[in-house]
Amino acid sequence: VPRGPDAALPIALDAMGGDFAPGEQVAGAVAAARDLKLPILLVGRRGPLEAQLRLFKTAGLPITIVDAADVITMHDDSTAVLKRSESSLAVTLRLVAEGKAAAAVSAGHSGAIFVGATVVLKKQAGIERAAFGSVLPTLSGRAIVVDVGANVDCKPRYLQQFGMMGTVYMRQVFKIASPRVGLLSNGAEESKGNALTREAYTLLKTSRLNFIGNIEGNDIAEGRADVVVCDGFDGNLVLKTAEGAASLIGTLLKEELTRDVRGKLAGLLALPAIHRLRRRIDWEEHGGAPILGINGIFINCHGRSRAKAIMNALRQAQLMVDADMIRELGAAMARASSAHRR
Amino acid sequence: VPRGPDAALPIALDAMGGDFAPGEQVAGAVAAARDLKLPILLVGRRGPLEAQLRLFKTAGLPITIVDAADVITMHDDSTAVLKRSESSLAVTLRLVAEGKAAAAVSAGHSGAIFVGATVVLKKQAGIERAAFGSVLPTLSGRAIVVDVGANVDCKPRYLQQFGMMGTVYMRQVFKIASPRVGLLSNGAEESKGNALTREAYTLLKTSRLNFIGNIEGNDIAEGRADVVVCDGFDGNLVLKTAEGAASLIGTLLKEELTRDVRGKLAGLLALPAIHRLRRRIDWEEHGGAPILGINGIFINCHGRSRAKAIMNALRQAQLMVDADMIRELGAAMARASSAHRR
Repeated sequence: VPRGPDAALPIALDAMGGDFAPGEQVAGAVAAARDLKLPILLVGRRGPLEAQLRLFKTAGLPITIVDAADVITMHDDSTAVLKRSESSLAVTLRLVAEGKAAAAVSAGHSGAIFVGATVVLKKQAGIERAAFGSVLPTLSGRAIVVDVGANVDCKPRYLQQFGMMGTVYMRQVFKIASPRVGLLSNGAEESKGNALTREAYTLLKTSRLNFIGNIEGNDIAEGRADVVVCDGFDGNLVLKTAEGAASLIGTLLKEELTRDVRGKLAGLLALPAIHRLRRRIDWEEHGGAPILGINGIFINCHGRSRAKAIMNALRQAQLMVDADMIRELGAAMARASSAHRR
Repeated sequence: VPRGPDAALPIALDAMGGDFAPGEQVAGAVAAARDLKLPILLVGRRGPLEAQLRLFKTAGLPITIVDAADVITMHDDSTAVLKRSESSLAVTLRLVAEGKAAAAVSAGHSGAIFVGATVVLKKQAGIERAAFGSVLPTLSGRAIVVDVGANVDCKPRYLQQFGMMGTVYMRQVFKIASPRVGLLSNGAEESKGNALTREAYTLLKTSRLNFIGNIEGNDIAEGRADVVVCDGFDGNLVLKTAEGAASLIGTLLKEELTRDVRGKLAGLLALPAIHRLRRRIDWEEHGGAPILGINGIFINCHGRSRAKAIMNALRQAQLMVDADMIRELGAAMARASSAHRR
């Protein structure tokens, strides 16, 4: 069982990755250092970072700049991170690999982050594929969906392992004693599903996980499962479809409310409620997508992340460190494989 | 090229299929006969149907009962329809096959409907797999998703044909001159997708369809495509996830609005707008899921359909008849195959 990182270590932030980098990255780091007392390593070009930091009162805040001359952009190939060792992403990864940071956050190129994390930090023992997790709001709280985009064509065993990753995440980070694991399918019955999910069903049923069977798309929002298992193609589909439906309803509601004076008044009066609703379903409030199954804690934020989302991802990274995610997943893998050998 | 059904023929309604059959079925048929002037064949047990009809003023309405002693329930196997020739579903299918009805509607067992339709009505020439289509509301109007559940494991050629089915549907029924066909994927770039969609991409790109490339889940609601092509597993996922997200937002908004007096007042004032919004996104307003690619027009309604949904599905069936869907899809298939031979 691997040892997790030291919880007192700083969190590294790739300050150059993301649509609004480095401005929003620096603002998020300052908020995390000031409000959450998190020590931060700001990785990137010293000049721009110092200029941004001067916009804030940073005296006494635990923020340190770590130089990185190069930047991987959205136009680069995912594997660029392996060749460009002075890129902010490569330097950020090394800080974690060398034990100088407890965890890392980047809103940069997801593909490059995933390639870099699996190559530099390496997969945990026994893990066949690392995966992106994403925490979604539900009626009863929240659920993690694994995988949301890293692995489009999966084998049944990968899905079983995604179930374990999600279980350890929900147990350690959200203190759910026995997370309910649902397999995303096109019907509740065991006979439903495609070739992949029907085989994964059998594996999950005989695993040590709290497997509740197949769930459908609507069951996610209803909170039927704490962990939603699917391949990365379908995980992406779920995230984007839910986002699209939410956005459609918001737009249509606004259209209908602005048709007459009565509606406009209703809209004005409803503003605080709508604001609270937004907070509950806003991805910016929920941090980013952790890469699960690697020897390190790395969170990928949405490219459009603003300071608030960056701060929440830094908080989430620290939660994962405090929850000893890596050691716990390692222990769960070891238990599963010893059960398998018996 | 096959001949389509005579538009003056009645529409057959499986009056015994669905959670609220035959009451809501009969009420929907009466509404369609009275308000839309559609002649209806009500298929089922004469006793209960006559009892339901007596609840309405039906004098002079073009409604005829066709006897069927048996009923396929949700607990039956899909293939039961092939053996139980006196079931309301089997009789409904025969009315279409024998040219006694122009089209048919059922809110019964989807699996049985699909099996029955493909076996009794048979696939159109050249069609490899029939599929369920489903029309969803979008920001700019509506889009049809094909397939939404009939075929979970697909070959690339099936997806190409789904694109053609959706194209003919949107062109004929909604009069869109050149429907934009999008392939559901996990990213816009041609390189994105899984093994199935990457191959389907190549086929669609070289087809005669107005193929706009990959689209993502959120692009559906945004109205980026008129036809969304995917396998039945993912189509089901999209429908259910969108439904779940919409329902979650509705519930959370209600929770937030009822927290204080201001919110409650806003909610009251917003009622007409919310009612109009509901109408715009309500599946009951959009009819049912047509089976595409068979020699007959058959629409499967949601099991929970009430009279309004049944009436709208009967209207949709007549629209498909008037639009000459079967002949047009046959002609499109013939053009595609002659282009292929050249």
